[in-house]
Amino acid sequence: MLFHVRMDVALPHDLDPHRRTELLHAERDRLLELQKMGVWTHLWQVVGQYGAIGILDVPTNDELHAFLSSLPLWEFMRVEVTPLATHSSDQDAQP
Amino acid sequence: MLFHVRMDVALPHDLDPHRRTELLHAERDRLLELQKMGVWTHLWQVVGQYGAIGILDVPTNDELHAFLSSLPLWEFMRVEVTPLATHSSDQDAQP
Amino acid sequence: MLFHVRMDVALPHDLDPHRRTELLHAERDRLLELQKMGVWTHLWQVVGQYGAIGILDVPTNDELHAFLSSLPLWEFMRVEVTPLATHSSDQDAQP
Amino acid sequence: MLFHVRMDVALPHDLDPHRRTELLHAERDRLLELQKMGVWTHLWQVVGQYGAIGILDVPTNDELHAFLSSLPLWEFMRVEVTPLATHSSDQDAQP
Amino acid sequence: MLFHVRMDVALPHDLDPHRRTELLHAERDRLLELQKMGVWTHLWQVVGQYGAIGILDVPTNDELHAFLSSLPLWEFMRVEVTPLATHSSDQDAQP
Amino acid sequence: MLFHVRMDVALPHDLDPHRRTELLHAERDRLLELQKMGVWTHLWQVVGQYGAIGILDVPTNDELHAFLSSLPLWEFMRVEVTPLATHSSDQDAQP
Amino acid sequence: MLFHVRMDVALPHDLDPHRRTELLHAERDRLLELQKMGVWTHLWQVVGQYGAIGILDVPTNDELHAFLSSLPLWEFMRVEVTPLATHSSDQDAQP
Amino acid sequence: MLFHVRMDVALPHDLDPHRRTELLHAERDRLLELQKMGVWTHLWQVVGQYGAIGILDVPTNDELHAFLSSLPLWEFMRVEVTPLATHSSDQDAQP
Amino acid sequence: MLFHVRMDVALPHDLDPHRRTELLHAERDRLLELQKMGVWTHLWQVVGQYGAIGILDVPTNDELHAFLSSLPLWEFMRVEVTPLATHSSDQDAQP
Amino acid sequence: MLFHVRMDVALPHDLDPHRRTELLHAERDRLLELQKMGVWTHLWQVVGQYGAIGILDVPTNDELHAFLSSLPLWEFMRVEVTPLATHSSDQDAQP
Repeated sequence: MLFHVRMDVALPHDLDPHRRTELLHAERDRLLELQKMGVWTHLWQVVGQYGAIGILDVPTNDELHAFLSSLPLWEFMRVEVTPLATHSSDQDAQP
Repeated sequence: MLFHVRMDVALPHDLDPHRRTELLHAERDRLLELQKMGVWTHLWQVVGQYGAIGILDVPTNDELHAFLSSLPLWEFMRVEVTPLATHSSDQDAQP
Repeated sequence: MLFHVRMDVALPHDLDPHRRTELLHAERDRLLELQKMGVWTHLWQVVGQYGAIGILDVPTNDELHAFLSSLPLWEFMRVEVTPLATHSSDQDAQP
Repeated sequence: MLFHVRMDVALPHDLDPHRRTELLHAERDRLLELQKMGVWTHLWQVVGQYGAIGILDVPTNDELHAFLSSLPLWEFMRVEVTPLATHSSDQDAQP
Repeated sequence: MLFHVRMDVALPHDLDPHRRTELLHAERDRLLELQKMGVWTHLWQVVGQYGAIGILDVPTNDELHAFLSSLPLWEFMRVEVTPLATHSSDQDAQP
Repeated sequence: MLFHVRMDVALPHDLDPHRRTELLHAERDRLLELQKMGVWTHLWQVVGQYGAIGILDVPTNDELHAFLSSLPLWEFMRVEVTPLATHSSDQDAQP
Repeated sequence: MLFHVRMDVALPHDLDPHRRTELLHAERDRLLELQKMGVWTHLWQVVGQYGAIGILDVPTNDELHAFLSSLPLWEFMRVEVTPLATHSSDQDAQP
Repeated sequence: MLFHVRMDVALPHDLDPHRRTELLHAERDRLLELQKMGVWTHLWQVVGQYGAIGILDVPTNDELHAFLSSLPLWEFMRVEVTPLATHSSDQDAQP
Repeated sequence: MLFHVRMDVALPHDLDPHRRTELLHAERDRLLELQKMGVWTHLWQVVGQYGAIGILDVPTNDELHAFLSSLPLWEFMRVEVTPLATHSSDQDAQP
Repeated sequence: MLFHVRMDVALPHDLDPHRRTELLHAERDRLLELQKMGVWTHLWQVVGQYGAIGILDVPTNDELHAFLSSLPLWEFMRVEVTPLATHSSDQDAQP
């Protein structure tokens, strides 16, 4: 089941530089891990913003929330979730 | 080059039913055609709305505009375009 | 899997009165049917508005979209879907 | 009398970690208590956000405000209250 | 129990003039009736707008919705309801 | 001359607790004083928010601004002023 | 007593051309009349929009509403009223 | 003196097709004429929208409004004007 | 050439009190100076807000930006500029 | 390929003055460099705001993001990117 996720990150400018670096590395590791698990199927950078758009494939809403809130930058992100369904004009869904 | 496209359709309720049917068929044909051409790489239905999210792969902005404005429902759609770049944590972009 | 749905209805003031009555009866029948099926678990009137809030329990996003777009007033509604997860302080979710 | 409540929490990133833990425990205890009292009838997590949707059953507006402002996280929450009425298509309200 | 109500009216410009006059007279009669019943305790004109602010005193949300939706201009109004509670600095609420 | 005032308060979470207590007492005293003067004719708590709605009766805009900016919490409030006029369906305004 | 008024006009595109011309002439006459009366002290065109900004000097809110709603284009305008007070740095208000 | 102009066009779907064609041709002619006059220095299509961004070079606000309101599609456009000044990091403005 | 300016000031609550006082005095001096120069033709207080509305008469956009950014509170203000033109119903613009 | 960029800068008021000066110089140097490279073709100051509008000419979205995120003030800016296409009424695009 697919979900569209828009994430916008706002790090406080007075965040300790060491913690900032640790957070960014941890975020990257977790995003790569979720992609390898097949949970996070697409990940794009939004041009000109500290933001990303992702597509996640998860069996339930509970798991979706668990994956998103496991991101190291979770507390610094604004996330907007949009449930996706099969489009009737999707070529992969034609009979 | 990838672009994220959010489309919301609003058909006037007094649109001639015959024209409405024609438009919907033509829209579906054009969407399938653009997918077969490799221009429209993903197409999803937004749950609960007469709207869709698509990803297009085009070489230039001019072609992107030409493809979008070639949609039969073009004059009844509100479209929002977001340019996408490679995300530094995308597993397909790792060295 | 639960979804929160906010629906706002706007009927055109020049809608044929007969069609309006038919639509309202059909809408009511479909809403009762979805409740009897166990799909639509809660349905509330928003005070002072031609709008409603519902909770739906469905196994997939595709089914959620199919149920919502099967409503007779579908083309006159603005719908906003919010995926819900188990809250860690929900008393029914305590170990 | 039912009210729909949307709560969004924003904890300051420089909040003392000890106070943060205390607040979260106290919030959980108070939410469980209000559920046991029958005041808070439903509580859901909003997927992807530090937010919740609840349904409260209270006899008066004064009591609703007293319950909401008794939450330990009250000063860090943005709350939106929507009064609910019986929906004419609610199956439990049919004659 | 008090509720704050903001009402904005938008009559279609092509509404039949006779029906318009009837609606406006009926609206006025109903508003006066609700005031005489003690339901509608204050009613003010918003300067420069076709809008009003009212305070209603009703025992339940269901009755509030019934009163508001009984207004003859109901289908042409956008209504926003805000539940009110006793303010701790209200001089009539001092011990 | 009546004005509708919506006030939303946002106290910084790191405000000195002693100053906070002083400010809240002073605010309450000033609100009671303005009510006794007949300037502030109604004061309601907005349910679920650190906000209030008031009705003020003042002879001029200058005095309205002077009264509002004399509130001890003035610098922590967002205030929205709406001028009110006599409503043609107000029962106290009938000939 | 001064009020700042922002007016935005939206004439329906299918308005009868004769009525449109009449309305525009009547609006102009009324605006000139209100200026001659000293009620409407300033009137500016907003560049690039079918809108205007005005300053009105009236003794009461009731008169302000009466003047604004007397405009022939009243039913086609969105009006926003902002009460003005003497600015402490206004050179005409210095002691 | 430069001004940034964002124009969004919304043609009514029931506009007479002949008039529509005439309007579009006239709009194009007028836009070309303003460019030849040196008034309209840049004109770009906004991708995915029936909208444009332009830069105009005019000596006064009055002339700017006159040029914009001379566009044949003027009554069907929403226009937003942003005054521009020389940027201190513009290479053409370096000493 | 006239411009309408809306200014909203937000001073940080932890600003050094001495610097705050200095800034406010300097702002007042600069506003009076700009009025004496004939640049700032009108200045009004927005009732209930830490905000002002002004009308400036300047020959170019560059000078407008220079004057506004010369205000001592510049870095704490949100400013919105609206270019004004002569209104066709302005009595001073009649032939 | 052209992109329209709106940038709004918000520097924290407690930023170290030395770092602030360094950042502003570095920003200016980078903006001049991008102009010399032919990447940044136009740069304008938005009047009355700490903001700018730019036009960039880049071959890909990835390069656009790289250029924008290379700005020294990047972490203090809100950026909005709008892809531009050739306008059918652009005089330079006429056959």
